[in-house]
This record gives sequence, C-alpha cells and structure tokens, in this order.
Amino acid sequence: MYGAGDVRVETVPDPTIIEPTDAVVRVLRSCVCGSDLWPYGSMPASPEGRRMGHEFLGVVEDTGPAVSGFNRGDVVVAPFVWADNTCDFCAEGLQTSCRHGGQWGDPGVDGGQGEAVRVPQAQGTLVKLPGGEDTALLPSLLTLSDVFCTGHHAAVTAGVNPRTTVTVVGDGAVGLCAVLAAKRLGAERILLMGRHTDRTDLGREFGATDVIAERGAEGVKRVRELTGGDGTHTVLECVGTRSAIETSIGVVRDGGVIGRVGAAQYDEVPLGFDTIMRNITVTGGVAPARAYIEQLLPDVLDGTVQPGRVFDRTVRLEEVPDGYRAMADRESLKVIINP
Amino acid sequence: MYGAGDVRVETVPDPTIIEPTDAVVRVLRSCVCGSDLWPYGSMPASPEGRRMGHEFLGVVEDTGPAVSGFNRGDVVVAPFVWADNTCDFCAEGLQTSCRHGGQWGDPGVDGGQGEAVRVPQAQGTLVKLPGGEDTALLPSLLTLSDVFCTGHHAAVTAGVNPRTTVTVVGDGAVGLCAVLAAKRLGAERILLMGRHTDRTDLGREFGATDVIAERGAEGVKRVRELTGGDGTHTVLECVGTRSAIETSIGVVRDGGVIGRVGAAQYDEVPLGFDTIMRNITVTGGVAPARAYIEQLLPDVLDGTVQPGRVFDRTVRLEEVPDGYRAMADRESLKVIINP
Repeated sequence: MYGAGDVRVETVPDPTIIEPTDAVVRVLRSCVCGSDLWPYGSMPASPEGRRMGHEFLGVVEDTGPAVSGFNRGDVVVAPFVWADNTCDFCAEGLQTSCRHGGQWGDPGVDGGQGEAVRVPQAQGTLVKLPGGEDTALLPSLLTLSDVFCTGHHAAVTAGVNPRTTVTVVGDGAVGLCAVLAAKRLGAERILLMGRHTDRTDLGREFGATDVIAERGAEGVKRVRELTGGDGTHTVLECVGTRSAIETSIGVVRDGGVIGRVGAAQYDEVPLGFDTIMRNITVTGGVAPARAYIEQLLPDVLDGTVQPGRVFDRTVRLEEVPDGYRAMADRESLKVIINP
Repeated sequence: MYGAGDVRVETVPDPTIIEPTDAVVRVLRSCVCGSDLWPYGSMPASPEGRRMGHEFLGVVEDTGPAVSGFNRGDVVVAPFVWADNTCDFCAEGLQTSCRHGGQWGDPGVDGGQGEAVRVPQAQGTLVKLPGGEDTALLPSLLTLSDVFCTGHHAAVTAGVNPRTTVTVVGDGAVGLCAVLAAKRLGAERILLMGRHTDRTDLGREFGATDVIAERGAEGVKRVRELTGGDGTHTVLECVGTRSAIETSIGVVRDGGVIGRVGAAQYDEVPLGFDTIMRNITVTGGVAPARAYIEQLLPDVLDGTVQPGRVFDRTVRLEEVPDGYRAMADRESLKVIINP
C-alpha cells in the first residue's frame, strides 16, 4: 500500500531464511482485514509503501536451524503478530506484547498478502494444521489467524458465559465472529447491532437472537427496551469508532463489561463519573490469537463452528486491489485471497 | 452544605420511622470523605442545602415493622449507599446499583454527619457489629462504611493477588486503604505514588514497598524504572483527577488492569489505539461496601488490619465545618466525627 486507495501488486525478491529462528511459508490463503481499510482510507502517500496482510496460512518451505517441530510441507497458520511464545508475556497468553515479537509488514518483514512470507520466531509463531492443502476447511482455518480469534478475545475478556446477556456492536466480520464466539461460550441471548441485512442474517445463523438496526441513541434505546431497561452484562465492541464505544457504554448493564477489539480510531473514551457510579469495565484489546488457536481448532476441524462463512469473495493476487475496493465499498464483507 | 466552603451545623427534626423498612440509628461515629471535598470546593450556592455524610456507625434506636434481625441497642455500620440486599444487582454484589437503593443525603434522606439517621431498607443495609459502643475499634470499624471497602474494591476489581505487582496512585485515605487491601490480598510489591511524607510513611506501615514522590511523566518514568521498564500488573487509581488516570495508564503493564475508585472529576479517559495494542483494562467504580463488610470484618476485629489509622483528627459535631477546612487544607488526612 502506497497511500489511501493505492494498493499495488508488485514482484519482490523471494523471502529466504535470515535469522536461524525464521521459516519461509508459501501462502495458501490470505485475506483483507477490516483494519486494513483504515490505512486504505487515510494513509498518507509513501514512496516506500508498506507490505500488507497479517492473516495467512500456508505451507512450510524452509526452516532455519533453530526451528524444530516443523518440516517442509507442513500446513501452518500464522497468528496476526509473530512471537517467541516463550517470554513472560507469551506465557501469560499475551503474545501481542511478546518481548521478541512484531507485526507483519513492519520494515524488513513480509506481509501475508503475497506468495510467500519469511516468518520470524517461526517455532513460537506457527501452528501446524491437520488436513493438508486441499481441505474445504481452509477459509475457517484462516480465521484462526485473526478474525475469529479477535471475536473470541472480545467475548473472553468480557466474560461471556451461559449466564450473561451479550450485545455485539458491529456487523462486520469481527462482529459476526464475536457472535459465533459468544454462542460457542454458551450465551443464550445475543443482541447484534448492525444494519446490513445480509450480514445480520449470517449473524442470526451464527447465534444472534435479536438484531438492532438502529444506531446511536436510538440503538441504545432499543437495546434497553429489549433488556427490561438494563442493557446487557457484556458488550463486544467490534468497530473501533467513537460512536461504537459510546454505544457500548450506553448499552452495557451496571456492573457490566465492554470487551473492545475494534482498532480504535478515537483517542478518548467517555468514562466519566456516571461510569464510576455504574461500575463499568472496559477491557479487551488486540487479540493474542496465538493463545487461542489450539483451543479453537477442534471446533473448526469438526465443523461445530464455521467462521469461514464470513468470506464472501475470493480473489487472486492480482485482484487484491479490487478486493480492498469491494470491502471499502461494502460490496464484500470479507475477501479471501487465493494467490 | 449550602455551597462551596459553606458547611453549617443546624438543628433539624429528629428522624422517625416513615417506611416499614426503616430503622433509626443514633450516630456513634461518622467522618468526612475525600469525595465530600469536591462539593466543598465547587458546589454552587443552594438555599436548601444538602445533608452531608455517607459513612457512619451507630446504635439502633427504633425499627419499622418490616425490619427483623435488629434490636434497639444493636451497634451497626452502614455502607455508604443503602440497598435492599435482595434484588438481582445486590445478589451479584453490586449493592451500589440496587433497584430499591439510594444515597445518604438524597432529598428526604438524612446524612451521616449528624446525631441520628433514618435508614431506609434497614434490614438490607445495616450490618451488626460485635463489641459494643465503647470499643477502641470504632474508627477501624467505621472504615467498613466506605474508605477501607473502597480501597479493597480497587484491589479486588484490579485482580490483586500474590503474583501481581501493584501501583497505588494517591496517598489520601483511600489510597492508603488500597495499599492495606493489596497487602491483605497478598501483594508483595506495592508502589505508592504520593508526595506527603506523613501519609506515605503510614503507607509504608500499611505495606507499600516503594514510594514515588514524582508526579506526571516523571512519576510514570520512575515507576517504570522500578519495574524493569514494564510497569505493574495492577494499578489502583484512588484520586479521581484526569492526571491520576493518565498516570495510571502510563504505569500499567501490558495486559494489566486499572481499578479506579477515585470519584471521577474528568469526563474522558485517553484509551486510544495504544491501549488497545497493550490490552489495558479499566475497571472498578463506586465500591459496593455492603458486599465486603462481613468479609473484611474478622480482620478488623482481630486487629490484622487497622484501617482506622487513616483518621488523624477527631471533631465534635459543632467542629465539622472546621474538619472540612482541615481536610481541604491538607492539615488533616481524614477527620472522624464523634457527635
């Protein structure tokens, strides 16, 4: 990406092992993230550009001498940051703050939207997948890289369980995955706030019991009407706008928890005296997908959950710029890339 | 209180039973809260004034026909909001959101800074205390009404345990009680941010291992230096100013939790993208003291904790206006009232 609206597919040197902890992975599937749309909408023009893509799965092509447990030909999924998975933060399940980790697309590091990727800290980062290259499960497995784990993180940090009511703010791919995650964790009442019927219809299939199309103060009022005036115990904020966090505060029950996973486009959150009196908690953050992959994998493999249904368009590598455009224009919910 | 700086001691009709769920309690001890200093500093002049005081213990003088389990002469402590202790919020331990509760000093309801109080929802609100009227423990027992429970709430909501490092922001009575609560919950490293040596000295006796006198960016830098650059797992925000919440965000470790109990004098909290990337949680709120009294009572009774040491001045009822002045001028840490 060279700036807002300017995505180019270019030929770059093939990745190779640089550090002994590296692996090289040929990409089988990648995708465009809702968070990629923020720079797509506003990135200042840059002569160097930035490698894009932080969600991918693929096949191990090569490993450095310090990488054990992976062989050429293994199918693997990469979480959306790389991490050693051994430091104290990783041991606590916060691989996003790994002391030796980093982000795809950082200077010198490939992005996932390409043919192949050099994977730093490969042994800690990658997770081996059963099923080979051809499984129909590839889209759902790909969501373990970010979007399903992100919805799950919102639900886990908010404390969703069978006794909690849930509001999901946002009907994008993360919001729909949050519905799925909340349902999987046993929530019986899941209110989905969104106004794109095709998306909220999928949300209902994923487990939403109510859909609220109204936004802002009207949306808050509607959620409160549906919950006897109280709001819900948990709110999963899956958008990242000021309006979404305001709505979240408006619909959360006293003593309740907002798990926010939207990439914040705001600097300030209105958490004044009223929220002190109401004992409101704001938690969540960028999802440590690596902490969740093994835990969620069995349900993906046996089809209990099908988060891959959020993909509604497949593009080849040369069509990636059009994939960005389609998502930005809300033509597509989420685009999967088959290089 | 009739406005900023205008506290008057006046004769009002003796309280009587109005609702069958009421009790009348003669006040043995009451006190001035740090939060009382906010209106003392800024309340617009009001011809009607407002009854003050939400922390008191006393002797039951009379009970309504719907109140059982309490007899004339029982010594009781009142948490700083009244509540039925039976509704769903109360059952969850959030008596501050009780469906039939309210605040001392609300229109028609007495304040604790007086000779006697009509206690609504008395059966749910009051907790019987052993030891009679003359025990030397009265100051520490009084802190169960608010200040010790508030410090405890900060520590509990932040998840303090033997494995967490702790920063306490603020060396007021709440901050010192938060130190005591954190120590009681097993914390081994407790950093106290405050610059009043007499107060931080008491903080050290309560369990603080480090005292940071610097404020703002310098204070944040110092906490980070003392924690290998990381900050602490938990932060107990016990002030309520914008500066205190900014400091809290600055000193909390990635993945950490801020338990805020300061009465927020701010409307917005800087919880933008950086705090998403760091997975910072903001929790806490007004303390449901009623939920904690029985739990903390044994340690107060056997002297394991002595939160009453935060009181450094005793006043009679007619001296209450000077008690406010002394606390506002930082001459006194916390004033206890012996009517």
